[in-house]
Amino acid sequence: MSDALNNALGPAGCLTGTDVPAGTAMDASRSGRTLPRALLRPASVAQVAKALAICQAQGLTVVPQGGLTGLAGGAQPGPGDVALSLDRFAGIEAIDADALTMTLRAGTILQHAQEAASAVGLHFPVDLGARGSARIGGIIATNAGGLRVIRDGMTRDNLLGLEVVLADGTVLNGLSGMVKNNTGYDLRHLFAGSEGTLGVITRAVFRLRPAPAPQATVLAALPDFAAVLRLLTRARALPGLSAFEAMWQDYFDFSAGLLGARPFPHSPPVSVLLEADESPAVMDLLEGALTDGTLTDALIAQSQAQALAFWDIREGLAIDDALPGLINLDVSIPMAQLDTYARAARAGVLARFPGAHVSFFGHVADSNLHVALALPQGADADATHEAEAIAYDLVRDFGGSVSAEHGIGTLKRDWLGHTRSPAEIAAMKAIKAALDPHGQMNPGKVLGEG
Amino acid sequence: MSDALNNALGPAGCLTGTDVPAGTAMDASRSGRTLPRALLRPASVAQVAKALAICQAQGLTVVPQGGLTGLAGGAQPGPGDVALSLDRFAGIEAIDADALTMTLRAGTILQHAQEAASAVGLHFPVDLGARGSARIGGIIATNAGGLRVIRDGMTRDNLLGLEVVLADGTVLNGLSGMVKNNTGYDLRHLFAGSEGTLGVITRAVFRLRPAPAPQATVLAALPDFAAVLRLLTRARALPGLSAFEAMWQDYFDFSAGLLGARPFPHSPPVSVLLEADESPAVMDLLEGALTDGTLTDALIAQSQAQALAFWDIREGLAIDDALPGLINLDVSIPMAQLDTYARAARAGVLARFPGAHVSFFGHVADSNLHVALALPQGADADATHEAEAIAYDLVRDFGGSVSAEHGIGTLKRDWLGHTRSPAEIAAMKAIKAALDPHGQMNPGKVLGEG
Ligand SMILES: Cc1cc2nc3c(=O)[nH]c(=O)nc-3n(C[C@H](O)[C@H](O)[C@H](O)COP(=O)(O)OP(=O)(O)OC[C@H]3O[C@@H](n4cnc5c(N)ncnc54)[C@H](O)[C@@H]3O)c2cc1C
Ligand SMILES: Cc1cc2nc3c(=O)[nH]c(=O)nc-3n(C[C@H](O)[C@H](O)[C@H](O)COP(=O)(O)OP(=O)(O)OC[C@H]3O[C@@H](n4cnc5c(N)ncnc54)[C@H](O)[C@@H]3O)c2cc1C
Repeated sequence: MSDALNNALGPAGCLTGTDVPAGTAMDASRSGRTLPRALLRPASVAQVAKALAICQAQGLTVVPQGGLTGLAGGAQPGPGDVALSLDRFAGIEAIDADALTMTLRAGTILQHAQEAASAVGLHFPVDLGARGSARIGGIIATNAGGLRVIRDGMTRDNLLGLEVVLADGTVLNGLSGMVKNNTGYDLRHLFAGSEGTLGVITRAVFRLRPAPAPQATVLAALPDFAAVLRLLTRARALPGLSAFEAMWQDYFDFSAGLLGARPFPHSPPVSVLLEADESPAVMDLLEGALTDGTLTDALIAQSQAQALAFWDIREGLAIDDALPGLINLDVSIPMAQLDTYARAARAGVLARFPGAHVSFFGHVADSNLHVALALPQGADADATHEAEAIAYDLVRDFGGSVSAEHGIGTLKRDWLGHTRSPAEIAAMKAIKAALDPHGQMNPGKVLGEG
Repeated sequence: MSDALNNALGPAGCLTGTDVPAGTAMDASRSGRTLPRALLRPASVAQVAKALAICQAQGLTVVPQGGLTGLAGGAQPGPGDVALSLDRFAGIEAIDADALTMTLRAGTILQHAQEAASAVGLHFPVDLGARGSARIGGIIATNAGGLRVIRDGMTRDNLLGLEVVLADGTVLNGLSGMVKNNTGYDLRHLFAGSEGTLGVITRAVFRLRPAPAPQATVLAALPDFAAVLRLLTRARALPGLSAFEAMWQDYFDFSAGLLGARPFPHSPPVSVLLEADESPAVMDLLEGALTDGTLTDALIAQSQAQALAFWDIREGLAIDDALPGLINLDVSIPMAQLDTYARAARAGVLARFPGAHVSFFGHVADSNLHVALALPQGADADATHEAEAIAYDLVRDFGGSVSAEHGIGTLKRDWLGHTRSPAEIAAMKAIKAALDPHGQMNPGKVLGEG
């Protein structure tokens, strides 16, 4: 690598050749094949600025990398890219227990932020399965959702301040962290969800929340999707509703079957996993819903272990291994039409690929549906693309989003135009060109080549 | 006006000469003196697009106007500007009671949106004193805060989708309103708070909320600001905490005195107006806080009338008339330092302007402080600017924001650099140039001249 980068970052800050870890080629989509030309590991904001300015001077393109748990290929190097990780710039800088804010470095692992909040009796409002590896910079750059969006919102909803370094090394310090700050354009929200294409996120201020009350976990059986919507309307009035996850029969049967679980005597057309603050209101709601037929059955977890067993079915822990080549789509659909979409997508895929696995589950309260899709053995990349097209074309027709949570990266680039109009994409490109005129930051991601 | 605009918009859609209403010269800051060259009143999105494209072709600059209740001069015409109002493009287009969303036109008056939500048993999550005149486009363009931010958030926190017309007539339709939509840059948040400088907002999707429970209204007396922070920490655990407003002694005495109100036998060093869902938790909190000295006294409103009487003191209804030339600063300060800031600002202003009125109140839970400032009679514009400088320089030194809610417009343009760095302002200008290359939209506002 260049002497300039070496001098600026020191030997531990600039890895090249065989020192570049093999893992830097791919994120959790496991689709990357290219090692970065070097791995830069700046240990301060000033070093990030220095490194980016040197890359600009030398015409080097840069892919920011967090914990490499992303599912869209956004952190995977393109040809010639230098990777930049903040693993040496981690840690909590401040907690303000009055204002309920935390200032932290972008290299911090999500779980460490959660633990630091818990240690002072507060709650860090982002949580997801990859918490042990994902880093705050990646969480923000993908605007991650997660397990508690219905209560805590998406990442951006909890982001009070942000520091970013632009491609030319300019530092934008927006760390004042004021809850209210109507002084010009909100740059924070532009970088949240930009997947490394506009600059490197270095520090952030997050909103903390009071520690949640103990949760009641309910697994409920419902006769149809209309009942799911009725239950949701009532569940929204529960104190602290924190999860409302639906499983369509195909998914529930497959996942529970693999786990050897049989929570209900008859497998229900739809089931819902619901969590809220423990309170008499939960019992009242269930009793009312059982009486009027909204529910046909309901189980309240009697222990932490039982609650986790319910979640195991929802998370489909055994499905990944059972279905090699599984694709997990992550789409949004207008809420009232979730079931109609599921039927249409199932029918469409099965008509073209008889014997495929297609099943549905999702964060229904956020209109977020996951489609578990596995083609019969021997299907190639073209077939996979064709199956995706069937599912994504329907998303477009229903006016939904081809990526609810995971972002576009490279893997969903072909489908961006299904959700965003040519005018919107042109506006995004104009903004990209304004902030990164040389196309230095994460080229080819999200918006494609130029 | 040009024939092209007349033809595109019809006679009712293009007012010129003596037909231009006198009120279009000024917003609620009452500082505007210039009538617009014409008032355009498009009645559809297509007409907005047509009108802007014609203005671009003819080199006309455009100031969008909503209800003209803004306090920063943002909707006041600059020399040669054409004003564009959406008063003929108003109304609710759809309510989705499952997904809890409302799609509405930007010309809709805030109160009409609130009433439409109430009519279906739901709650529109933005409220402010100007509700009878402010329009949705203005609410979004200023990212308005208001009375319930602690519970419901700012406007942008409730904005799920947005349609905007750019200066060249391009329509950006982002109305899908998906709660989760991680597909490229979030344009929505760029236009929210942009004060008409990037395009004309035409339609929006808002999040609705379940109707709130009946509220308990408490007026509490506290010994000092440390007690306010202790009370706030406990109050955050109350179900449905919807207001936490502090009044410093100077403000409370002045406002209550003008109203002839004397809620407490001794005027307290700080008082807090608190609202939350009616529940036993409110009584428990007050009893505990009275016992340990966090509160010295507390009144629970026994009627709607008494609740309103508490609010009258907080809103300072009589102050405007009593203090001609009153300036109301709207700043954010890191929460723990609100009181230190108040002392410093008071001392600074009084040292330079003996006999001035300086008093403090604010949405403490949002770190938002209002400073009521009136100079002794006979003070001129220079003196006013000097007094503002004393207060705003301290905001900068405390790392706060010179505009928490009201925006920059023209009236706070001189102070933008107190809160945003040169690098941030340069980034904003680059974005402005990318989306509005001819500087056609609301020139001179927020970012100054070019
Ligand atoms: C088991 C598992 C469960 C998951 N659950 C969820 C879930 O519930 N909800 C959800 O939304 N996602 C989920 N994900 C996806 C993933 O965890 C998130 O997208 C996460 O935010 C990625 O963080 P990361 O640090 O690993 O980022 P990476 O994968 O390293 O990078 C992701 C993107 O962010 C960019 N980036 C990283 N750091 C920076 C930085 N400092 N500055 C600028 N850009 C940067 C990269 O260039 C890339 O485009 C899950 C993944 C796994 C493996
Ligand atoms: C009594 C009173 C109480 C208030 N209370 C609060 C409060 O609690 N919190 C708060 O935040 N504010 C408050 N305000 C300020 C004001 O009500 C808000 O700023 C409101 O959002 C302005 O809406 P409007 O429709 O009147 O906008 P206008 O004043 O007409 O315009 C405001 C800005 O928005 C732009 N704009 C308007 N419409 C559009 C559009 N369609 N597209 C693009 N740009 C547009 C204008 O160019 C201008 O820059 C109060 C004002 C008054 C008079």
